[in-house]
Amino acid sequence: MSRTIEGSPRADGFRLPGEFEPHAGCWLLWPERPDTWRDGARPAQAAFAAVASAIAGFEPVTVGASPAQYRNARAMLPPAVRVVELQADDSWMRDTGPSFVINDAGLVRGVQFDVNAYGGREHGLYAPWENDRLVATKVLELERLDRYVAPLVLEGGAITSDGTGTLITTLDCVINDNRNPGRSRAAIEAILRDYLAAETIVWLPHGLMHDETGGHVDNIVSFVGPGVLLLAWSDDRADPSYERVREAQAILSRARDARGRAFEIHKLPLPRPTAMTSAEASTLTISTDAKARRAGDPVCASYINAYVGNGVVVVPTFDDPADEPARALYARLHLTRRIVQVPARELVLGGGGIHCITHEQPKPQGIPGRFIQLKS
Amino acid sequence: MSRTIEGSPRADGFRLPGEFEPHAGCWLLWPERPDTWRDGARPAQAAFAAVASAIAGFEPVTVGASPAQYRNARAMLPPAVRVVELQADDSWMRDTGPSFVINDAGLVRGVQFDVNAYGGREHGLYAPWENDRLVATKVLELERLDRYVAPLVLEGGAITSDGTGTLITTLDCVINDNRNPGRSRAAIEAILRDYLAAETIVWLPHGLMHDETGGHVDNIVSFVGPGVLLLAWSDDRADPSYERVREAQAILSRARDARGRAFEIHKLPLPRPTAMTSAEASTLTISTDAKARRAGDPVCASYINAYVGNGVVVVPTFDDPADEPARALYARLHLTRRIVQVPARELVLGGGGIHCITHEQPKPQGIPGRFIQLKS
Repeated sequence: MSRTIEGSPRADGFRLPGEFEPHAGCWLLWPERPDTWRDGARPAQAAFAAVASAIAGFEPVTVGASPAQYRNARAMLPPAVRVVELQADDSWMRDTGPSFVINDAGLVRGVQFDVNAYGGREHGLYAPWENDRLVATKVLELERLDRYVAPLVLEGGAITSDGTGTLITTLDCVINDNRNPGRSRAAIEAILRDYLAAETIVWLPHGLMHDETGGHVDNIVSFVGPGVLLLAWSDDRADPSYERVREAQAILSRARDARGRAFEIHKLPLPRPTAMTSAEASTLTISTDAKARRAGDPVCASYINAYVGNGVVVVPTFDDPADEPARALYARLHLTRRIVQVPARELVLGGGGIHCITHEQPKPQGIPGRFIQLKS
Repeated sequence: MSRTIEGSPRADGFRLPGEFEPHAGCWLLWPERPDTWRDGARPAQAAFAAVASAIAGFEPVTVGASPAQYRNARAMLPPAVRVVELQADDSWMRDTGPSFVINDAGLVRGVQFDVNAYGGREHGLYAPWENDRLVATKVLELERLDRYVAPLVLEGGAITSDGTGTLITTLDCVINDNRNPGRSRAAIEAILRDYLAAETIVWLPHGLMHDETGGHVDNIVSFVGPGVLLLAWSDDRADPSYERVREAQAILSRARDARGRAFEIHKLPLPRPTAMTSAEASTLTISTDAKARRAGDPVCASYINAYVGNGVVVVPTFDDPADEPARALYARLHLTRRIVQVPARELVLGGGGIHCITHEQPKPQGIPGRFIQLKS
């Protein structure tokens, strides 16, 4: 039901909306692999259920679960959440779901990038990833939406859009031989322009330190709206990302968006650096299929990694003094949205956050009048 | 997203529509098990694809496929067919899908019966069947439709409805200790009345001979519309079902429907008796999980086992002299529908037919005016 469309979204008049634009709903995948998620994934499942429940109070939520986990997911999630069968290799809908693009007539299509578990067999986080490669297809089939297939390895968490032609991303996760070997920056930019209708691409060299993805943008910077950014920040020299957030600040301060504007940048504090405890590590299943996680390994937590929905922002907490200032800043910048805090320690232990496990599906408002033709 | 509703469809004003009423679409499951479907299920997959394609010309079609078969199903099916992931234990959507009920306000809900692979571990056709038990749930979740859970083992192919309170079914497949041990006819009838809003239940003792299900009604009789039946028929005394169709005729001739009318009965010829050939049997995979099928085993073919859709009847062919008279009778009785013939030998080799592998989802027309309240 989902046709594959030749050509490109840009040529067809589609754009990548901002995440702060209206949503038709939100997608997640249900966690289960015990070599990513400690204790047989039960604590992560409770955390995912809390995120899904928080969002479901504001917009429709669909959670994809494997056949083996379907009953358990259905039982742990509230009735308002739709559960569909959807086998993936892990549970990062942000990264494996389609990039939805929209046009002024109110049409939605999907852009399907390739994925390779964050760097392939040698540098990636798990193997195989053949089910991950089908997640975008399956979501678009479920929604009966047509798709473009982009010739690039790109996770959704590697990019952020202002909805008006500005894309921010990181070199580490895109122009990297572990994803797109031998591809030049110019060639990759051409694909981003064609498939995501990006007019201006702002490249940060890195994301945060210890980000297992190699440094996704969605831990370090996000759009509040066109021209307005949240930037992860720390004034603690001992913070491993101390230099990186300053580097990002320098680049973003000089940058101009697709409309030629400078960015208004708001600093969002980082939680204190933290590591996996022995108790946490001891309940991980050892596996040959996934990167080992050990006691003492730094984990990468960030309040940037949040979900902006219809009338809500779901913001992580880490039992950290910065939980409250983070909440307060979101509240100040999103005046029309409720702020709902959800504990996210279990998510960062698995290598991600609230943004990584969610993926909004836009609901274009359309401009019906634009296509009214008067008979002569 | 699919709430479980207490109470019963009858109490809530819902009814089981006739299959000839308007559809929102049609559901199928993709065949794959090599111990049911010969030659690694490839010939069956081509046959299922032909049925799905025929229907997709007239109404939306969704095919559920396992994670392992998703790519293959997507490749073998035309773009107009939606493919969703849906793990089942075999591919009988008629039997494992929900019984959709509708009300006059245009609402649709699902009734979820239990299944046990046509008779359980000892008498059934395969094991396990835990995925089959979830098929109705998954379909209703996908469609965001609420469900009733009926306390009865009942396959969809075991019943047929005229949409106005008349149900025809067979004793062999319902009042049988291999499905519902120790349950009285009265107790079972009470459930059928409550969950399918049946006012009049016509019991045939048997279906056709050699029907692996034990004798589903959907091989022997179907409704053309309220009061009008098609009955499988043979004048060949050597036909194994010669006595059974006469027995059914005698019962149906005396029966009255829920509105007190006698049935108008049209005899639809049976194809000649046939058996599995050595060539066919030789490519079946032997398994401990499924009933063995051997060369020389009789197979049960019937033109009753067809799909009535929006503007179409998909009728099986068996390379048999009765193919044409069967087509002609369908054409005469369904004046507003196109008749599309599809070869179905591969389906009967697996134990079913076109009706067994499909399941319509009704599209209630509603009576909007009924709920308009005038302000006083």
